[in-house]
Amino acid sequence: PSFKLLLLPGDGIGPEVMAEVKRLLVWFEKRGVAAFNYDERLVGGSSYDADGVAITDATMELAHASDAVLFGAVGGPKWDGVPYDARPEAGLLRLRKDLGLFANLRPAICYPALADASSLKRELVEGLDIMIVRELTGGVYFGEPKTITDLGGGQKRAIDSQVYDTFEIERIARVAFDLAKKRRNKVTSTEKRNVMKSGLLWNQVVTEVHRREFPEVELEHQLADACGMQLVRRPKQFDVIVCDNLFGDMLSDIAAMLTGSLGMLPSASLGEADPVTGKRKAMYEPVHGSAPDIAGKGIANPLAMIGSLGMALRYSFGLGEAADLLDTATANVLAKGLRTGDIAAPGQATIGTTAMGDAILAELDAL
Amino acid sequence: PSFKLLLLPGDGIGPEVMAEVKRLLVWFEKRGVAAFNYDERLVGGSSYDADGVAITDATMELAHASDAVLFGAVGGPKWDGVPYDARPEAGLLRLRKDLGLFANLRPAICYPALADASSLKRELVEGLDIMIVRELTGGVYFGEPKTITDLGGGQKRAIDSQVYDTFEIERIARVAFDLAKKRRNKVTSTEKRNVMKSGLLWNQVVTEVHRREFPEVELEHQLADACGMQLVRRPKQFDVIVCDNLFGDMLSDIAAMLTGSLGMLPSASLGEADPVTGKRKAMYEPVHGSAPDIAGKGIANPLAMIGSLGMALRYSFGLGEAADLLDTATANVLAKGLRTGDIAAPGQATIGTTAMGDAILAELDAL
Ligand SMILES: CC(C)[C@H](C(=O)O)[C@@H](O)C(=O)O
Ligand SMILES: CC(C)[C@H](C(=O)O)[C@@H](O)C(=O)O
Repeated sequence: PSFKLLLLPGDGIGPEVMAEVKRLLVWFEKRGVAAFNYDERLVGGSSYDADGVAITDATMELAHASDAVLFGAVGGPKWDGVPYDARPEAGLLRLRKDLGLFANLRPAICYPALADASSLKRELVEGLDIMIVRELTGGVYFGEPKTITDLGGGQKRAIDSQVYDTFEIERIARVAFDLAKKRRNKVTSTEKRNVMKSGLLWNQVVTEVHRREFPEVELEHQLADACGMQLVRRPKQFDVIVCDNLFGDMLSDIAAMLTGSLGMLPSASLGEADPVTGKRKAMYEPVHGSAPDIAGKGIANPLAMIGSLGMALRYSFGLGEAADLLDTATANVLAKGLRTGDIAAPGQATIGTTAMGDAILAELDAL
Repeated sequence: PSFKLLLLPGDGIGPEVMAEVKRLLVWFEKRGVAAFNYDERLVGGSSYDADGVAITDATMELAHASDAVLFGAVGGPKWDGVPYDARPEAGLLRLRKDLGLFANLRPAICYPALADASSLKRELVEGLDIMIVRELTGGVYFGEPKTITDLGGGQKRAIDSQVYDTFEIERIARVAFDLAKKRRNKVTSTEKRNVMKSGLLWNQVVTEVHRREFPEVELEHQLADACGMQLVRRPKQFDVIVCDNLFGDMLSDIAAMLTGSLGMLPSASLGEADPVTGKRKAMYEPVHGSAPDIAGKGIANPLAMIGSLGMALRYSFGLGEAADLLDTATANVLAKGLRTGDIAAPGQATIGTTAMGDAILAELDAL
């Protein structure tokens, strides 16, 4: 088989971690797993510097034509002053919206070898495996009006609009219930129905989808503030958490941080399945950001980006075995005690980005 | 001096913890600290059951006429099906809005004796002392439109509106900077300026208030998702955090949970100072909720409610010495190892709500 990929390394440590993915693509080709044709383009601040926009129309066209997009990270203090519509994040948001990537899957997994890196007590996070299913193309991120108006007399008024339609909640709920069936069969739906009308509708629609289509899955409702608390208190109570765009942004970052494995966590953003081919538009990216403070130093952890390639192999290319290989290689490398700085215990020796890539390749060769 | 109080115990454990406050008011009167005239009324679900609304106009009038309101907690599964406008939370929201209580101060303090109750490692939370300053009368809680519309064909559309004007951000920023000056002189302002126009305005206005009025305070900006992460990772980096209504709801609950002392934490909600008398409308309430699962069992921790009385003594009545007495009594009781269930170490003996009140009174007698 042959697949078309678009690589968008972006800013900060994005290009460094993407470099390791490129070496892996070569390795998988050599092994005869598949042919990977990839284009590489700018996004975020680096695209703004070159072209004055966070992503060009030409790059968007390539994204539409690809089987999967691999995304690094965007942003950094360098672009704090650029016009709002050209800020680095606008590139990411346009990709999500224009490709229709409504379902953002963010696993929060605690790697046993790294449990001590968590700020939580080991017993609370060891073996943790949560899947956060975040709605990604609606809510306050994209609702209109979204304006700042000058009221005169030194006063301005800013407005953002949280808008959700029934069908948007239905389709993300289905993704969550489907995933739960392959996991521990439990979904926690979270919103603020006590203060938000969108929370009320969210609650009703999820309840209805559950009743009609997934009565065999356990469904629980938690207010978003309570859910944040429970994540900190007793994270292992959760299997799948489903929530809107903004709550998902916060809760998934908190869950990721709990694991102590932030530099390890990939994510997938998926569109609706094509009714004919069954294919979904898809983008894969690490949960961590562009980390401008360590960019260019060759010390970033490439494993979340490599894990994102693994998710692409599995979910977009149907190459589950290749993805398993990659997971095993990663587990072995960790078991050998190889660590980048972010996941090292105090006093433990660390290696850089390329050395970690080397180690993964060596493991793959040995498998 | 003589003060008028309105006690609103509310639902769940609210009445149980408020009972201990009433005994303390009697004690302070007997000691000649001040005369406290208080009325007691229903709010939340219990008000709905009696009067069909979450708070009556007559009770609101009493609230307006009081020097301070002491609020217990509202809500519970019993009222899940009541009409939206009559839901228990509507009583709390009306109090906040109609009294103009725009500044919500939520301390997140880790009591050394309770550090082991935190899910975080002791060294990360021991001595933690964060003040979250949450905007409380604006944002998505109150913005219009706030609607659910039937679009036909089984589709509904829910809309919530996040609205902030310059003056609303200015006044809450001032509260945060003022507090920081009496603490460790650092403010972290948090928003999502990368996706929300209100975040952009928030960032600009806080920056401007800082430049013009508080250049001597250290100001730092963090995106709300990053702030959530940092709270979990390294909470002691924070002194004062200032944020909007919705982010404040989430971040303050997470911060409270980090401390392991949730059942210990009071909060204050303050209005603008009257230009003539300098007095502020004020409401004091525990950070914890109505805990329906343990209501009526006599085991709730009254210390957050008692701490809320302490904040009222200090901030509304100018009775700092009485507040100090109460703090000392609480510290002594904890030092003696007295614990309600929520703050007990595994295997440690526990006492009930009334016994904890008894212990505080006994300490006060001995001081
Ligand atoms: C970069 C930013 C726009 C983005 C978001 O808020 O969605 C990021 O925080 C994320 O979670 O992917
Ligand atoms: C009860 C609810 C309306 C309230 C809020 O969301 O503000 C509560 O969570 C709080 O934080 O005081």
